[in-house]
Amino acid sequence: MATNYGGHTSGDPTVSEVGEAATIAAIRAAAPSEVNGDDAAVLDPVPPNSRHVATTDVLVDGEHFRLDWSTPFEVGAKAVTQNFADIQAMGGRPTAVLMSLSAPGDLPVSVVTGIARGMSATAAPWGVELVGGDVVTSRQLIVAVTAIGVLTGPDPALTVDAARPGHTVVASGVIGHSAAGLALLEYFGSREAVPDDPVLRDLVSGHCAPRLIVGRGTVARAAGMSAMTDNSDGLVHDLTTLAHRSGVHVDLDGASLTPDAQLYYAAEVTGGDPWEWVLTGGEDHTLLGTTDREPPAGYRVIGEIREAGEGEPVTVDGQRPVYTAGWDSL
Amino acid sequence: MATNYGGHTSGDPTVSEVGEAATIAAIRAAAPSEVNGDDAAVLDPVPPNSRHVATTDVLVDGEHFRLDWSTPFEVGAKAVTQNFADIQAMGGRPTAVLMSLSAPGDLPVSVVTGIARGMSATAAPWGVELVGGDVVTSRQLIVAVTAIGVLTGPDPALTVDAARPGHTVVASGVIGHSAAGLALLEYFGSREAVPDDPVLRDLVSGHCAPRLIVGRGTVARAAGMSAMTDNSDGLVHDLTTLAHRSGVHVDLDGASLTPDAQLYYAAEVTGGDPWEWVLTGGEDHTLLGTTDREPPAGYRVIGEIREAGEGEPVTVDGQRPVYTAGWDSL
Repeated sequence: MATNYGGHTSGDPTVSEVGEAATIAAIRAAAPSEVNGDDAAVLDPVPPNSRHVATTDVLVDGEHFRLDWSTPFEVGAKAVTQNFADIQAMGGRPTAVLMSLSAPGDLPVSVVTGIARGMSATAAPWGVELVGGDVVTSRQLIVAVTAIGVLTGPDPALTVDAARPGHTVVASGVIGHSAAGLALLEYFGSREAVPDDPVLRDLVSGHCAPRLIVGRGTVARAAGMSAMTDNSDGLVHDLTTLAHRSGVHVDLDGASLTPDAQLYYAAEVTGGDPWEWVLTGGEDHTLLGTTDREPPAGYRVIGEIREAGEGEPVTVDGQRPVYTAGWDSL
Repeated sequence: MATNYGGHTSGDPTVSEVGEAATIAAIRAAAPSEVNGDDAAVLDPVPPNSRHVATTDVLVDGEHFRLDWSTPFEVGAKAVTQNFADIQAMGGRPTAVLMSLSAPGDLPVSVVTGIARGMSATAAPWGVELVGGDVVTSRQLIVAVTAIGVLTGPDPALTVDAARPGHTVVASGVIGHSAAGLALLEYFGSREAVPDDPVLRDLVSGHCAPRLIVGRGTVARAAGMSAMTDNSDGLVHDLTTLAHRSGVHVDLDGASLTPDAQLYYAAEVTGGDPWEWVLTGGEDHTLLGTTDREPPAGYRVIGEIREAGEGEPVTVDGQRPVYTAGWDSL
């Protein structure tokens, strides 16, 4: 019996039925790019004083997504989003995406093209294309994406080690929405069972395909921010990394992190705690930065940087956070 | 019972035992790079008139390597080699490597660090480091590598669509050795069972970790070669792609492809046909180019480009090759 890839099996031909060449042709049709199709992709030249940045992330079926919860389009979108978030978190602008797809032979080609379409559509607002890739057979569907970006001009990249006491901590983007969406999917057991309510559906979408705001990374670098990262493994978890790498203490302002109405609503439905989602939920890809200036447009203050002390690297209003866990991939 | 990863299980701690942070720390120690360790890697600036090239390839345990045949070091080396071959085949110089590792939780950390050491050691002669990566849990060991390279100067990239009638076909590197090595492993059933003979052992090594000659791609571009690719899926297979993409016919010179003494020796041992290895064996990553000039140093003539006709896209001395199959990943 064929594996049920989230119901995406309605008689569609599989990758092993059509073979490598036809699968690659289908991907190219779903995510067209002029530069895709040779041994390697040739990227556009960049201004002389530029440096490139590069990052890679893997999404594993059953670990980072479920095809009975997410559409293939959303899986592709999420893979691009989390890589572009890392490019943004350096203050960079994405310029290219490459995909390595490991697929079981019985995977319908329509799932592959759905993933490619999600990548292409998510990259398009940045002026970026899927420029290369590889497709192989494996026992589990695994989507590995590499994003390349550019840092234009001589300003430094925004790294996690440059926060200094006296800087404010700023954020751009929602916090806790992806975790709330996951909690809703787990509570109702399937996506179809989630009530047809725009607030709840939006949170679920925010988990299956979190959204980035185009250009916030370059804005942060142009505005002279000091350190930056993104909320991929959990707010406290990722800021703990920043605290350790910068040799500082992060004190968050509890009032600024108060869960929004959407989170309280989802918590009422599921019986969850919205503060857990805010403090430990990852995959929002909220940009988290530090600065000694006014926060740039689109950023709000959520805390401040202090001298490193003996206690917790990250506190909320001076206290140990009530939740501190974060995502561990292994 | 723990999976036996080719005998690499002698009580070593596993990735799930040590967790993500310690596994990543072990990879960084095995493949050190100053720029690895933030949301994304920042690459060195390149000369103003440069373009970047990028490529990605996946190696799946049981499909592209076997840990009872290859050491982890060789798996990492092979992953870098096949990506660098693609950069070379564009006429480029590799500048960075990123690795996405999907690993079963019971995989020993020593296997992961072995792979990383193989990558680092293979990239080192090019002045290239492992600058970034991701490690996740999966049911099967999968190594996805992305290589970035640079094309310096205004000359065009060496693509597969630029061969023209009258050009000669040239090659740099061995042809058929990887396939002979694979045949030896299949014939003897294990690496240990392969006789301790330098010729046979060298062919097996050439399969488990094919070797590139540093700089042959930039030499080819500097010498004004027209088209280029590498022998990754099989000589006839890859030249058929070049023939179709360039709209030409490739006629190979049989005498120049005559299997060497090593291949004849291996064929005598295994009962195989060395011509099959030459014509259809992939993964040698031999550079295959076309030129209207004298072949540059390190390249030998193996055929010529003619007008496309009605018949086979690739012939040997005007005849259909006796073997034409190639590797299909799906």
